[in-house]
Amino acid sequence: MQTKRGYFITLEGCEGSGKSTQSEMLKKYLAEIGVNAVFTREPGGTPIAEKIRSIILDGNNGAMTDETEALLYAAARAQIVKEKILPLLCDGKVVVCDRYIDSSFAYQAYARGLSYDFIAEINSVAMKTCMPDLTIFFDITPEAAFRRKGGADADDRIEQSGIAFHNAVYRGYKSLAKKFPERIVEIDSEGDIDEIFSRVKIEIDKLLRR
Amino acid sequence: MQTKRGYFITLEGCEGSGKSTQSEMLKKYLAEIGVNAVFTREPGGTPIAEKIRSIILDGNNGAMTDETEALLYAAARAQIVKEKILPLLCDGKVVVCDRYIDSSFAYQAYARGLSYDFIAEINSVAMKTCMPDLTIFFDITPEAAFRRKGGADADDRIEQSGIAFHNAVYRGYKSLAKKFPERIVEIDSEGDIDEIFSRVKIEIDKLLRR
Repeated sequence: MQTKRGYFITLEGCEGSGKSTQSEMLKKYLAEIGVNAVFTREPGGTPIAEKIRSIILDGNNGAMTDETEALLYAAARAQIVKEKILPLLCDGKVVVCDRYIDSSFAYQAYARGLSYDFIAEINSVAMKTCMPDLTIFFDITPEAAFRRKGGADADDRIEQSGIAFHNAVYRGYKSLAKKFPERIVEIDSEGDIDEIFSRVKIEIDKLLRR
Repeated sequence: MQTKRGYFITLEGCEGSGKSTQSEMLKKYLAEIGVNAVFTREPGGTPIAEKIRSIILDGNNGAMTDETEALLYAAARAQIVKEKILPLLCDGKVVVCDRYIDSSFAYQAYARGLSYDFIAEINSVAMKTCMPDLTIFFDITPEAAFRRKGGADADDRIEQSGIAFHNAVYRGYKSLAKKFPERIVEIDSEGDIDEIFSRVKIEIDKLLRR
């Protein structure tokens, strides 16, 4: 028996890919067309998950092992899924989440080198009950993104990881898009923001009409 | 190729099982016989793992899901294993840890009802590289432990659901001892503390003579 539930949309991409800007435009658009949507972010989105986020992103925690980092992301995800995302979806809402499971694959597996299966296992709670209906990958190379942004954020442990790391993340996303073509849509994210959003809108309209 | 490494000893048991008292006696004993030992605890033991510990134990985090709790324990464990326990063992030290992997099995799997395999998977980092050479299970029922701890007073503080939970933890430990007889030693932990420690000493001497 399938209960009617809302749509779960995730936004993915490298640092500076324009996710946040496009997310704001999407928020306005969904409000305009009368869609009841909740926007959230990962890691975080609930009080407990935000506490976990602050440990992950704290620049003083440089000694953190890759495995610990991956497990903390999974812990924050398990919390937001049960406490926030699933109840909203069951209530028929559209949930838009800035980063989700694909970030763990791209950053922790493809870029940090942890095994894909380990990431899948520790995220099994989220993967079993709460996979996105649509994932939008904002496709822009790290070089182009940092050029547009004007450099990396000095306080952010992840942004400070170096261009080789971010290139590996980018290649990870490209592999994921090939692996899950039924779910992940690649949006060309260079150029004019309105033009980029018009591409996003096509995918959103397609999903909501389904 | 196996490098010479120290011994890894973990102490397990229900609340009030006498772990801390016996741990102090063990610390004195190992110092007396000239064994270079480091005592630590879980969750915690490193700055990052202690931050994770504070989220787990914070009374304000009542909304935490069982899965999040289990993943946070595994995250703290991954950190202490790589940052502290493995380097000490490789340096030939004896490491004694108050709680470890069996606490996750007893509390999160047997008592909270998460799957044993899920706990094993998320702890695979620790399980693959850093299993204890000896685990001492201080075997005393929760009823007897609470009686010893505070008599009639204990009945007021520990609610019925509380004691049911602790009984499930206890049964979990008994199952684990049957499952891993080559690693887990059950120490009868009722009665005189010196008598209990004499039992601990027998196992420690056996291990160090190996």
